[in-house]
Parts: sequence; C-alpha cells; structure tokens
Amino acid sequence: MIKVAIVGASGYTGVELARILCNHPRITLTTVTSRQHEGKPLSRVFPNLYKKVDLVCENLTPAELCSRADVIFTAVPHKTAMDIVPQLLAEKKKVIDLSADFRLRDVAVYEQWYQKHTSPQFLKEAVYGLPELYRDQIQSCSLIANPGCYPTSIILGLAPLLKAGVIDPQSIIADSKSGTSGAGRSALVSSLYCEVADGFRAYKVADHRHTPEIEQEINRLGHCNVNISFTPHLLPLSRGILSTLYARLDKGTGNDQVRDLYETMYKNEHFVRVLPEGIFPATQYVRGSNFCDIGFKIDPRTGRIIVMSAIDNIVKGAAGQAVQNMNLMCGFPEAAGLEGAPFFP
Amino acid sequence: MIKVAIVGASGYTGVELARILCNHPRITLTTVTSRQHEGKPLSRVFPNLYKKVDLVCENLTPAELCSRADVIFTAVPHKTAMDIVPQLLAEKKKVIDLSADFRLRDVAVYEQWYQKHTSPQFLKEAVYGLPELYRDQIQSCSLIANPGCYPTSIILGLAPLLKAGVIDPQSIIADSKSGTSGAGRSALVSSLYCEVADGFRAYKVADHRHTPEIEQEINRLGHCNVNISFTPHLLPLSRGILSTLYARLDKGTGNDQVRDLYETMYKNEHFVRVLPEGIFPATQYVRGSNFCDIGFKIDPRTGRIIVMSAIDNIVKGAAGQAVQNMNLMCGFPEAAGLEGAPFFP
Amino acid sequence: MIKVAIVGASGYTGVELARILCNHPRITLTTVTSRQHEGKPLSRVFPNLYKKVDLVCENLTPAELCSRADVIFTAVPHKTAMDIVPQLLAEKKKVIDLSADFRLRDVAVYEQWYQKHTSPQFLKEAVYGLPELYRDQIQSCSLIANPGCYPTSIILGLAPLLKAGVIDPQSIIADSKSGTSGAGRSALVSSLYCEVADGFRAYKVADHRHTPEIEQEINRLGHCNVNISFTPHLLPLSRGILSTLYARLDKGTGNDQVRDLYETMYKNEHFVRVLPEGIFPATQYVRGSNFCDIGFKIDPRTGRIIVMSAIDNIVKGAAGQAVQNMNLMCGFPEAAGLEGAPFFP
Amino acid sequence: MIKVAIVGASGYTGVELARILCNHPRITLTTVTSRQHEGKPLSRVFPNLYKKVDLVCENLTPAELCSRADVIFTAVPHKTAMDIVPQLLAEKKKVIDLSADFRLRDVAVYEQWYQKHTSPQFLKEAVYGLPELYRDQIQSCSLIANPGCYPTSIILGLAPLLKAGVIDPQSIIADSKSGTSGAGRSALVSSLYCEVADGFRAYKVADHRHTPEIEQEINRLGHCNVNISFTPHLLPLSRGILSTLYARLDKGTGNDQVRDLYETMYKNEHFVRVLPEGIFPATQYVRGSNFCDIGFKIDPRTGRIIVMSAIDNIVKGAAGQAVQNMNLMCGFPEAAGLEGAPFFP
Repeated sequence: MIKVAIVGASGYTGVELARILCNHPRITLTTVTSRQHEGKPLSRVFPNLYKKVDLVCENLTPAELCSRADVIFTAVPHKTAMDIVPQLLAEKKKVIDLSADFRLRDVAVYEQWYQKHTSPQFLKEAVYGLPELYRDQIQSCSLIANPGCYPTSIILGLAPLLKAGVIDPQSIIADSKSGTSGAGRSALVSSLYCEVADGFRAYKVADHRHTPEIEQEINRLGHCNVNISFTPHLLPLSRGILSTLYARLDKGTGNDQVRDLYETMYKNEHFVRVLPEGIFPATQYVRGSNFCDIGFKIDPRTGRIIVMSAIDNIVKGAAGQAVQNMNLMCGFPEAAGLEGAPFFP
Repeated sequence: MIKVAIVGASGYTGVELARILCNHPRITLTTVTSRQHEGKPLSRVFPNLYKKVDLVCENLTPAELCSRADVIFTAVPHKTAMDIVPQLLAEKKKVIDLSADFRLRDVAVYEQWYQKHTSPQFLKEAVYGLPELYRDQIQSCSLIANPGCYPTSIILGLAPLLKAGVIDPQSIIADSKSGTSGAGRSALVSSLYCEVADGFRAYKVADHRHTPEIEQEINRLGHCNVNISFTPHLLPLSRGILSTLYARLDKGTGNDQVRDLYETMYKNEHFVRVLPEGIFPATQYVRGSNFCDIGFKIDPRTGRIIVMSAIDNIVKGAAGQAVQNMNLMCGFPEAAGLEGAPFFP
Repeated sequence: MIKVAIVGASGYTGVELARILCNHPRITLTTVTSRQHEGKPLSRVFPNLYKKVDLVCENLTPAELCSRADVIFTAVPHKTAMDIVPQLLAEKKKVIDLSADFRLRDVAVYEQWYQKHTSPQFLKEAVYGLPELYRDQIQSCSLIANPGCYPTSIILGLAPLLKAGVIDPQSIIADSKSGTSGAGRSALVSSLYCEVADGFRAYKVADHRHTPEIEQEINRLGHCNVNISFTPHLLPLSRGILSTLYARLDKGTGNDQVRDLYETMYKNEHFVRVLPEGIFPATQYVRGSNFCDIGFKIDPRTGRIIVMSAIDNIVKGAAGQAVQNMNLMCGFPEAAGLEGAPFFP
Repeated sequence: MIKVAIVGASGYTGVELARILCNHPRITLTTVTSRQHEGKPLSRVFPNLYKKVDLVCENLTPAELCSRADVIFTAVPHKTAMDIVPQLLAEKKKVIDLSADFRLRDVAVYEQWYQKHTSPQFLKEAVYGLPELYRDQIQSCSLIANPGCYPTSIILGLAPLLKAGVIDPQSIIADSKSGTSGAGRSALVSSLYCEVADGFRAYKVADHRHTPEIEQEINRLGHCNVNISFTPHLLPLSRGILSTLYARLDKGTGNDQVRDLYETMYKNEHFVRVLPEGIFPATQYVRGSNFCDIGFKIDPRTGRIIVMSAIDNIVKGAAGQAVQNMNLMCGFPEAAGLEGAPFFP
C-alpha cells in the first residue's frame, strides 16, 4: 500500500480528499495536516468522517511530511503551495498540488494575475492534471498542477470543437455557475447561509483568476491566441458547476459532425459522459461523482453552438480529479476509488 | 375605490397579485377565480393570505366577471387568455393580461412560436406593458400585454445601450437564470423539490418562447433585425431572475459614457436601480419588490460589455409590473401598493 | 413625524428594522449606527435598501443618539445593551431593546444564565414586549424588553392553555426549529452556507439561554413554578421558527373547548392567526410578516395536546414585534407599517 | 454472482437501490421494473445513472421476475407489495420488501392503520429488517420487512434505554424531521420546490402510519404496552431524518451509565455511530451513507433525557438498510457495497 498525506485537510477540498481516499483500495491515508486544528481528530472537524478516518490533524514540516508519505496532496492556498512543493519534490515525492501555483506555464502571466512566483523553475516540469488532455505526461511526472474547477468544466466542454477547428475561438463566452463550496471554508460574511441562500449573483466579472488558465488551454487546443469572456456566478447550492459555453460555429458544421467530434474524443474516457441528443447536463446528476457531463445544441438562427458541461466542483473540479491523477501517476486503475455513482436526489 | 378581479388566482402569479392588491390603497379586490379550487377560500389554497384576503374562488363567465370589476387581471395560460380577453374589452373593462397572447405584434411570429391566434385584431391595440419604455401608451390604453419575466430583465438591461447604438445587436447573448416559481404551480415531476434543490441546469436551449418577445423589443430599440442567443436556466430558489448579458461594445465607448446612458435613461424611474460602480445585482436584493437592479462591467480584453440585471420574477417579472401598469392606466401614483422594500435575508 | 434611530443596524435584525421603518407612515428614520461599518451607507451593507434608506452608518455616543431621535431601537448584543440603555432613558427617550438584558425580572436568574447585570434597577420598569400579554403596560412604559424569538413562538402557542389551567405545565416540551438568520450575521464557520444547507441539527440542547425567559412567562401564566424542556434546532432556511409544543391535557378537555380558548384569547389580535381545524402552521405562510400562526391537535391515544406555532423569527420574533411595541408606546395604530401580507412562495 | 432485481425502480428508493447495487462487489443487477417508464432506460429516468446502469425499465409478471433474479427488492407502495411478494416467495426467492405490508406482526393493527391484508400468513415468517435488533433472524429468513425511515431512527435511538429499563416508555415523545425525498416522487403540488423550499411544517400530527410500527418495537424492547407521541415534520432538504426523542429518565441514572448502555449495545455495529460527549448528530454528516448517528443529553432540571438520532432517510432509512439486509441474508460481509463515507458538504 502506498502511503498518502493531505496537506491542508481542513478545507472542503481536504475533507473530500479524505472521503475518497479512506475507501481507496490501493493506498493508506497516513497523515492529515491543518495548522488551525492541530491536535484535533479530523473527524471532529468533519464529523462525517467519524469511524472512517481516525487521523489527528498535525502541523508538520516538509521534512516530516516526506517521512510519512509517498504521495502528497497539497490542498493549501496559492503562495503557500509554492513554498512547500519544491521541498517535497526534492525528496522524490509525488506531489499533486491543488493550488494555482503551477498551472500557468508562463511565469509572467502568473505574476500578472497572482503575485511573484518563487519557484518558477518547476513550471516546466509540472503537468497540467487534466487526464483527458495530458494522460501520458501525467503518468510519468512528479508534480501535478491540478486544474481549477471552472477551467475543468470549460476546457472539457470545448476541447473537441477547438481541436477540430470548427468554432471561432475569439467568439467564446463562458458563463459559469458554481456552488458555494468553491468559496472555501473561510469564515466570511459573504459565504454565510443567509447571504447565499435564495440568491444568485455574478462575481469577479471579467476579472477572475481562472481566466488565464482557461485561455492557456483554449489557445493550445485551438492553436490560437485569444482572450475569452468568462463570468463566474455563485449558486445557492453546495456542490456543482454548470458552464454554459457559447461560440460561433463554422457554417456547414452540422449536428452529426459535432456529435462525432465529442464521441470520438471522449469514447474511452471513464469520467466524461457525452449525453444523448436532447439531454442537457444538470449538476444534480453528477453530484458526489467524478463525472463531467456534456451536452450541446446548435442554434441555426444565430449560427452559434451552445455547449453545457456539468461537474461536481469538489470532485472532478478538485479532489476527485486529484485522485484520478494519483491513480495515473501510480499505475493504478484510473477509476480506483472513484467508481461511486452520483447521488440523486 | 376601483373594483378589481384576478382571473386565475391559484397560480404563483395569482397569489402574488392577491398579496400586493390586498394592501393597495386605491382599489378593492372583489373577485378571484379558479376553476380547480371553485368554492374554496383563496386563503385555503394559500394560507399566507389568511385574514388578509377573504374571498372564495369562483368559476365565472366573462359576463359575470364584468359585473364584478372595472379592472381585470388575467393570469391564465396563453390560449385561454385570448378566448376571454375580447369579451372583457367589449364591456369596456381595463384588462392586464399576464399571458403571452398579446405581446407579439406580428401575428405570424406568434403563430410560429405558439399556435393559431383567434383574436389577432387586438394585437394592434394591446400595449406592451413595460412602463420604462411605453409609459404614455400604457396610460391611455385598455389592454396591457404584461411582459414576460425574462424579457423584462433583458430588455431593461440592454435598452440604454441599444437606444444609444453603442453595441452590436448581432452579438447579444442573454444567459438568464430563473427561480422555480417561473415554472408555475402545476404538479410536474420536473418541478418537485427533490428534482430542483441542489441542482442547476439549462432548459429549452435556443428554443424558449420568450425569444421572439425579446427580439421584438431589441430590434425596435436598436432599429435592427437580429436574432439573439437566449438561454434560460433553472435556479434552486423560488423567486428571482438574473440575466447576464453580453455584447460587443463600440470601440471608444468608455465606462463613464455607459454609466451616463444608464443614469440618464433611468434617473426618474421608480423601479430601476442602476447600481453604483463595482456593485453587481443579486436576486436576493430585489426579492419581494418591484425593483430591477442593473450593473455592468466593460472588459477591455475582449471588447465586450457584460450587463447584469436582477428582478423578482413574480413581482417586476409578473404581478408587480402588472400592478404598476394598473396604476398607470388608472391614474394612480405609479408606485401605489408597490412601495415595500426588498426582503433580505 | 417622530424621529427614530436604530442602534446596531448592521445585523439581520437591524436591516429588517430598516426595511419596516422606511415605509412606516408615522415616523422618520433619522439615524442608523454601526461601529463596524461607520461611514458607509447602510445600503452598501445591505443593497436591498438601495434607494429606500439613504442613511450612512455612524458611531455615536448615547448623548448624540438622544439628540437625533425620540424612539431608539437597540439591536445590539446583550451586555452592550445594558451599558447604553440607561443613558437613553435618562434623556426621556423611549427605548425598545432587542437584547436579552431586560427580559428577566429576576436578576439572579439573569446572572445565572448570562453575566453580571450592571443596571438591575431597570428590570422592574422594563415591560416584556409581548403585546398579546402586556398591551396595557407597553402603552405607558419607556423601556421595552423585546422578547426573544423562540419565547415569542412558545408563549403565544401555550398561553390560552396555561391561563385556562387545562394542561400540566410540568409536562411541557418545546421542540423548536429556527431559520439561520437567528444565528446572526457574524462570520462564523458554523453559519456558512455549506455547513447549514441540506442539513439539520439540534444545538444547545437543554442549555439555551431562552429557557429562563420561556419559563418566566409560562410560570406566570400558569401560576406555577416548573422547568420545561426546550430544544432549539437549526433549519436550512433563512427566516422562520416553528415550535412544536407538547403537554398533557386534562382529561375531559375536548377539542371544542380548546378551540374556544384560543379563539377567545386571540380574536381581537391583529397578528395572531388561529388556523382553522385541520390546518397546521408552516413557516412559509408567515414569512416576511408579523403574524404568529397557531394550530393544534389533541391526541386521545396519549392524552397529550400538540400545539404548533409559526413566526418569522426576524419579524414577529424581533424587528416586527419591536415596531408593534413602538406603535403601542407612541399611540399609533398597532399594525402601522406591519400590514404587509406574508410572501409565498 | 447473485442476480438481483428491483421492482419499482422509478422512485427515489429505487434509484438509490440502483446507485448502491451498481457498485456492489457480490451481485449483478439484472432487472429493473417500472410500469410507468416501461421501455425506457433507467438512466433516462435518472440521468445520474448514465454509464453506471444500462438496464431498461420493464413491466414483468412475478413469474418473469423469478426467472431473472435470486434476490428481489420490492420498492412498491403498500398493498401492491402484498400482492406480489407471496408469488416470489413461492419460487424460493429472497425478498426484501420496502413497503409497510409485512412490518406489523399483528394483522389487526395493520388493518386498522392501512387496509385489509390479503396475505396475513406471511406476517409470521417476515423478519423486521433492523439488523441491530434482528441480525440472527435476518440471516436465515426469506422475507424481510424493511423498516420505515422514521422507525429506524427512533428505534435505534431508544433501544439501549428501553432494553435497560431506565426510561419511562409512557413518557416517550418522538419529534422527527424528514427530508422531502421521504414524500416520494409522485407529482403532487405539496411536494413542489416552491411549496417546500424555505419552509417547515408538521404533518399527519398524531396520525402517521409509522406510529404502530414504532410502538411495536418499543413495546417489545421495553416489555411494555404504551402509546407514544410521534410528530413528523417536513424539512426543506432532500435527504435526512433527525429524530429528537424525549423520555423521563429514572432517577439515579447518570451520564456515564447511559453512555455505557449505548456503547455496549452498539460497539460492534458497523453502521451505528455513538457520538462523543457533547457532539450532537446532524443530518449533513450522514448524507449518502448507511450510518445512524446518535447523541444524547441528560437534563437534570427536568429529569428528562434528550436523544437525537440522524440517518439518511433513503439509505439507512430505506435502500441502504435493504442492502444491509441482503448482505446478511446472502452471507456477504454486512457492509458490502455500503462502505462509502458520508459526503459533506
């Protein structure tokens, strides 16, 4: 059994990693860290884990971490991640980093949207952990930059069209809606139940840090260099992202051809479900699972295609995809620990 | 006191009309009809109205209705409306129709999206009941085609830009999200709590009947003839619509100029709130009120403007706007009965 | 017009007071205070109030407050209230205190459940602001101890039975469920959307500070001296309390007699609705209103009566009741500013 | 692999059975039936199952069913169940019936609360499928009467106290709150999103059909013959039951002794978690799992104990417990297919 640690276990991504990993057939979860809850059983922080995970939260140095685990998930904020990760890699650990610190290949872009990067030398060796695009590289790398939740839903939704060159990348608009777990577990007034329930709003309009990450992959897939419109919204639910994606479709590209593009690209993918004609994705049908559901509609009146993609933001958008990456890195079956069907209702 | 009737009082629009009208200072609610609940007090159907409305649901002929009221709200499905309304108008009643039957000026467009129209002669005399655009005509007409909820949010959101000619109408994309009360009170599996809660999805993609209504007003405001992209989504909340609107903005049109356009058009409007710089609309801030909140952001990276507009779909999107129209038709203060501030939380 | 101030306007009770008072026909809201948001318009803290309340949050001394208002609502935490209120009373202001500081007549009980009381001399002159029990005293007093939300629902639910002496007070069990606005607007992890949504739990079991307040009034009404069981629970909704109340009913007391007791006691009450036979209260039917809805069922199998009472916790359970008290103190119609029907859905 | 069928797969219990069984390591799901959706893939009815269950809904006779499966779950309404089950038993099938038809041992009690029983001869051989009480009998029987959701939560919550004889059974009050999935998937106005969301109410007060089932087991455990008070409430969430249970505790029974009773009875139970001192159950911590969480508090002021128990009503309260029973009947590990940790948030 491979030994695994979660650094930063007291956030919603951390608890979800623990939920998935505690039943994983090929690993043992040996260590969970949390500065804030040091000394407290993780199951006191998250009572859903009672009798499932009996680890106590610790506050460990990178060296101590390395003595405990072979694979390390860093579920800490950006900036913190880039301080820790190099020390873990130096000890030959496999690292799956869930922050944004290693996602952008261009350090200048990173520094424009975030802050000074202290370990830019690792940007080249980090692999962007979207298995549907980078499976081969993932299998042989040591550092995964686990994708952001919005980018996962948007890139998977558009990839077949971009690869085939049948849409105008310049025309892409991504209108995305996320559940509140995406805002994290910090005690903020804006995340209070009464502020979020029964409400809906956009936020960080034309200004969200996932924008350059989305553009990086879109431009690579489409061999182009465009800026896109991305508007995130906050849904009154805990889990789920739905992205509604708009683009001008090349004249002459018909429904069958588009369907073919999706089915060809995703037919062997365990976690992408291209929905049958006339069925559109809904977040409630992917909840608790690692699936990304995709549907589309061509609108002849406007010449646009509308693609919808749905994920559970803390599974395929974070913890689940991270475990999928671990499986690939370790040579496990890609779906190990991730076989559970979505919960409905 | 003017006597008022609600035809079709047992839906969510009906109960909201009753809620507003029972405290209206200038009218008396004399009659509520419901075929399904005939003989039952309306406050049994909707116990929130207990001790506020003590009318019994009746099933009346148009002639009986005319003997009971001077102003009649028809909150019945399309098709039913066009059968009743002409008989009410023949008796010189003022009619505010909340169905879609008299909203489209072009009978061919109506028949393409709905069905055969049996009273097309009234399409010309009906006034589209959006006071911010048609106040003068509303004041002197007998038949109001009360706007759809989505169109209200979208048209108010875009009107200043279209009138000024600073956006490309062809580029308009309206990504709208509505609370579940918009689906009505019919007993459908798709409207059950467990199907809607914790979930989010698009529906009727590129196919919703509000599309021609939106296009009619956009084309009139923009002196153009375009088709737009409109995608409705279902939110897990009862009340509220947020529309996120995208369009290419003319080069050289800056933030101050756009702000000016909005403030100029809406500065005397009681029910449109142009939000201060940096504040975006949220459905939770208009709930229970007749307000339409509008905010915007120009994105220099893409050359697009993103406008957001929020309403309570059963107030400004239905019952409240209908009462606003009644006030104008009857010479009451425009905000009579509609002064209540939004409920938060 | 009487001038009114809200001290502590940035909590959920504060915003609800502002919502109600901004449309009140007999007063002018002149002042809102908030230490945390000093200098910021209240409508920036609560955008629902935009264009309805244009006051800026201030941080004022009691003396300054007294120069601004004739009636002062103190919506601050207990302890803070008892420091301010005496200074306001010294200036002959009418004070409606929404904290717990003046609710318990016995200072020893207060000190056992809260902390040292610094102004015990005011406990005698404070009137417990439940108009259905203390209307006369309220009309002539200067200091209202506005009741807690749970106590309001429980006391109104049981009062007719206790006064008539038909239940055994010793047997009372109050199982109460409250919406999350009751937890206030503090940034606590336990109040985050993701912690509360889709969940339900009891808290402070056999240990909640409203217990002595409930017992004080029950013992007074029932001429007894009992302890009761009170269990609060947290509902995944913003507004609403439902209390389910159990007591052994005297043998021989039948349904008609019980109904008589309720209807006799409440027949002239504007804000208590005794529901018709077979209809049980639901929080969604009182939302946004000052109503307390009451229903009951006698269970011959067990000899118990089950009474249910529903209120909106921030209206009848806080801000609305406070305004009702102000109306009585100032000689206004008791329902002034509180006529709005509940909004459903 | 053992072949398994679900009769009545189109309800919420059906979809949950399919979700659990599609990953069960020891069985193959061969057949799903639904009269209403005959001919439609189950994954069209419930898109969460897409790519997980590829069976088509059929409408089969009991004989056909018997040719398809060794173990049959009947997830149909009461009355329907008693018509089918005898034919399945005649073919030596193992049957787990999720209706109420075989839960009450006394046919007279059944007929008083439900209707005429057409197969009373099977009441004696049916085993009440609460493994924590009847594990031995379950292992060797052919017909399981799978317990109701409310009874599961209440009986597990009280069993240790009743067995030890430390509470007065006469004093038991069970105040239970259930998520909306308990109301089933029928298209009823009362189950619509807008009727349930943001609301809370009691229903079937002193009149719910689970009452005799609860009393049957309480009286058996406590060697008594009492009627209890049971009040169900409807929570605005999909999954979860919390029961708050009140009883007079024998004088002299202290906290340690009570804790001992719970820990002794449940220490080897896989699915009952007695929570540590001071931690109370919450439905959000058992969601999606087969756990029953239990906590308690002794109130010396009133002499009562308050026990809280939480389950996911469609897992431990229905489908999960049914699978647990199948595991026992078939000699599988009791937790097979049920190992998933609760998902939070």
